Amino acid sequence: MLRSGNCSISLVRRVGVRRLTLSTTLYEHKHNVYPAQKLRMDDLNKNVLKAKYAVRGSIPLRAEELKLYLEAGQKLPFDTVINANIGNPQQLKQKPLTFYRQVLSILQYPELLESGSNIFKKDAIERARKLLKEIGSVGSYSSSQGIPAIRKTVANFITKRDDGEISTPNDIFLTAGASSAVDYLLSILCKNEKSGVLIPIPQYPLYTATLALNNAHALPYYLDESKGWSTDINEIEEVINDSLDKGIKPTALVIINPGNPTGSILSVESMEKIIEVAATHGIVIIADEVYQENVFNNAKFHSMKKVLRNLQKAFPGEYDTVQLASLHSTSKGVSGECGQRGGYMELTGFNPEIKQVILKLCSISLCPVVTGQALVDLMVSPPQKGDESYEQDQLERSTILNDLSNRAILLWEAFNSMEGVSCQKPEGAMYLFPKIDLPFKVLQKSQELDITPDEFYCKALLEATGICTVPGSGFGQQPGTYHLRTTFLAPGTEWIDRWNKFHAEFYDKYRD
Amino acid sequence: MLRSGNCSISLVRRVGVRRLTLSTTLYEHKHNVYPAQKLRMDDLNKNVLKAKYAVRGSIPLRAEELKLYLEAGQKLPFDTVINANIGNPQQLKQKPLTFYRQVLSILQYPELLESGSNIFKKDAIERARKLLKEIGSVGSYSSSQGIPAIRKTVANFITKRDDGEISTPNDIFLTAGASSAVDYLLSILCKNEKSGVLIPIPQYPLYTATLALNNAHALPYYLDESKGWSTDINEIEEVINDSLDKGIKPTALVIINPGNPTGSILSVESMEKIIEVAATHGIVIIADEVYQENVFNNAKFHSMKKVLRNLQKAFPGEYDTVQLASLHSTSKGVSGECGQRGGYMELTGFNPEIKQVILKLCSISLCPVVTGQALVDLMVSPPQKGDESYEQDQLERSTILNDLSNRAILLWEAFNSMEGVSCQKPEGAMYLFPKIDLPFKVLQKSQELDITPDEFYCKALLEATGICTVPGSGFGQQPGTYHLRTTFLAPGTEWIDRWNKFHAEFYDKYRD
Repeated sequence: MLRSGNCSISLVRRVGVRRLTLSTTLYEHKHNVYPAQKLRMDDLNKNVLKAKYAVRGSIPLRAEELKLYLEAGQKLPFDTVINANIGNPQQLKQKPLTFYRQVLSILQYPELLESGSNIFKKDAIERARKLLKEIGSVGSYSSSQGIPAIRKTVANFITKRDDGEISTPNDIFLTAGASSAVDYLLSILCKNEKSGVLIPIPQYPLYTATLALNNAHALPYYLDESKGWSTDINEIEEVINDSLDKGIKPTALVIINPGNPTGSILSVESMEKIIEVAATHGIVIIADEVYQENVFNNAKFHSMKKVLRNLQKAFPGEYDTVQLASLHSTSKGVSGECGQRGGYMELTGFNPEIKQVILKLCSISLCPVVTGQALVDLMVSPPQKGDESYEQDQLERSTILNDLSNRAILLWEAFNSMEGVSCQKPEGAMYLFPKIDLPFKVLQKSQELDITPDEFYCKALLEATGICTVPGSGFGQQPGTYHLRTTFLAPGTEWIDRWNKFHAEFYDKYRD
Repeated sequence: MLRSGNCSISLVRRVGVRRLTLSTTLYEHKHNVYPAQKLRMDDLNKNVLKAKYAVRGSIPLRAEELKLYLEAGQKLPFDTVINANIGNPQQLKQKPLTFYRQVLSILQYPELLESGSNIFKKDAIERARKLLKEIGSVGSYSSSQGIPAIRKTVANFITKRDDGEISTPNDIFLTAGASSAVDYLLSILCKNEKSGVLIPIPQYPLYTATLALNNAHALPYYLDESKGWSTDINEIEEVINDSLDKGIKPTALVIINPGNPTGSILSVESMEKIIEVAATHGIVIIADEVYQENVFNNAKFHSMKKVLRNLQKAFPGEYDTVQLASLHSTSKGVSGECGQRGGYMELTGFNPEIKQVILKLCSISLCPVVTGQALVDLMVSPPQKGDESYEQDQLERSTILNDLSNRAILLWEAFNSMEGVSCQKPEGAMYLFPKIDLPFKVLQKSQELDITPDEFYCKALLEATGICTVPGSGFGQQPGTYHLRTTFLAPGTEWIDRWNKFHAEFYDKYRD
């Protein structure tokens, strides 16, 4: 580590001052920029100011404060804060898969290939050896699109997942989670302030935030809560019509499947209709499928790519112009490796020159973190029957999935037993998005406090129980309805009891 | 892994078609968006199309092709491609520091705290234990600003580096390398198309690329090659004047110290004058100091923060409004961990609400990769005298630095012995930026081929020797002058001989 040492003030500087003072007197008249001031809010890029991201908004920030109070030994009505505001499984004690971590630790310290032979499973050592051959050092920049061998593994996974529909490595871009994929896609697709992107409401706020940063229009289409948060194609067509009437060109349509925050799964029919609309209007489909492993209650996930290929086979020529970007991530599913920032996107049907532009955009941030790329390889090609890690790996995976689906059902039942609360049955993802019919007194109170009624409820819940959730207003909801998003990741059920108790007291206090 | 299974085509879709065909006939007249077409270049965001990033441009891409030919056993005039185009030390066999990698491998697989006790050094195990306490799992999202304990370690490092000038954790933002820091800063500072940012020429093209993405003006100020690429404050003032005359507001000024691609180090006087200008005009200083460890030939690095603090003490009140963002990274220095995407920025003198906006921007991409954050901790707080890893760590560091500075000098001497080539003496960073007076025939030839003369030289060099460099035009240079950027990271000196031989033949062929 070098020190800056003792750097004396140079005389030259005084000259500097005189000269500058002269020239700046000039500016006073010419440009009136003198005297200099610090940046204020209205000096900043308006698009950045517009962007909102509720998942890390005021309530989560308050939760962090409460944690500090607890650490400082302060007495609160609860002794733990429960971060149900964000899908962060390992923060809530979900165990990382052993196989992943064994391989990753060898990649960081390749000497373990030998010295760790008694510690690691054989297949973990072999996989690490293979990856090191393909990667070199995890400390080197990789190609901006991602390590070729890993993109090949991803393509094989997709081909197998989609029952043989071929995926090719050239269409795969490795990314830092799904967030950077969304960033890249919306950056190129938002041509100007007349561009719009259709997003489901409720949505994951990354989309509206990124659209705000790109000064483009979010074109909301509402999901039908009464039908399990299903997609209404008529609604989508109306939105397209209206935006065209307003001179706003819909360039892309986002679907989140399984749904965040809704937890619902798209039907094949809905997906076909969405493809139909995309084909008709030349709208790019962005399929956020990061929860494709988080599926339960006998629900079934169908990839947008597979549904598209089926349509293309059934009606030759009709769907050749459809362009689809499918996103996946190592942050969710049974992996839950959020902090490792791994992910990929598959680009289907795009012209080659468009993919080149996306590649250039990737290259400006050099490359996604290489250990995250390796993790994608592990996610899409886990231990197979006969591998030494297989049995334990299967057990770890099923345990995680079963715990999640059990807790999802418990929480869902709890909500539907609460006064004024209704909740759609969860099919996938990590969230429930219950509807809360808030008493009039709550609407009044929140108006006085100039916050939304759902925010009022979430604040009260946090202060009374330590359970941190996100108000529905952060995701969007039908006007006059109130929701919140909670994960069901927190272990145990004690916190659900806390919630039940709070809710009853809350209604006793505010019931009309 | 779930399969999409056999999803049959639903009947509903036929209805869909009829309805849609109707409604789209409507569009034909109303909006003429039918029939749908795929995206073409002119459908994309112009700012993205404008952005250029030469470090991964056409010549590096050609180098990748040549590698594939060699792997396929094809005969070429050389048997290895040397990537001297990018500062990617470990790709060129620079060894990772053992201490770093031991700690990181334990973070990935904490069981090694026990089972690895005979493999890892005691202080590596202790550091891993401490970090795991602070981080939890590296698979969890961290706070968007970065793990508090690590920001504290960074602040302590800066305080020590700057001889006691206090740095505070709240001013530290952990980032994915320095690139994402530049992205955040320019995103908020580029208010609109009338915003400008002063950048040194030659520059690291990340800056012009990011400015293009933000549709803001790059305001180039030329470094003085005849004076060791030093900064000319008169030049900077003229640029500010001219841009103000043109109605373009200079909001920030970038310095790269040690210089990329120039390899020069800023003098304290130059830094004082830059601060003077910033104070006068309320211009934010962005100090790219990622090469602060790469210093040799008795040159001395002074941090911009330290120079600012000295001025503030010497002339109370005069410099209170100066706003400085200092960037550092784990990718360079003796760490060279490019693929791990670690870095930080320190924000000095910004209003709190401005820092909140930056934090919001960080939160939209959730958090920097957590292992990269841990690596920042290791970089700024390496083993100390008495720690079990200390001796070996010191040896590894000095070996890397000595190899680099020796090779820098060898290459520098080689350049100055080449016909028509002159090169400033390297003081720091990882690059040389020699000036090449190209023969007239070369200028003619390149005009015929519609490429720049320096690109012509770099292409010829690559095809003949496998040495991949970047033309000076990718960084900017005085009109009519031609340069290239090369790293001096490649091991050995055989490649320098290759270059000598090529250059002599090249001049014999094209000499006027």
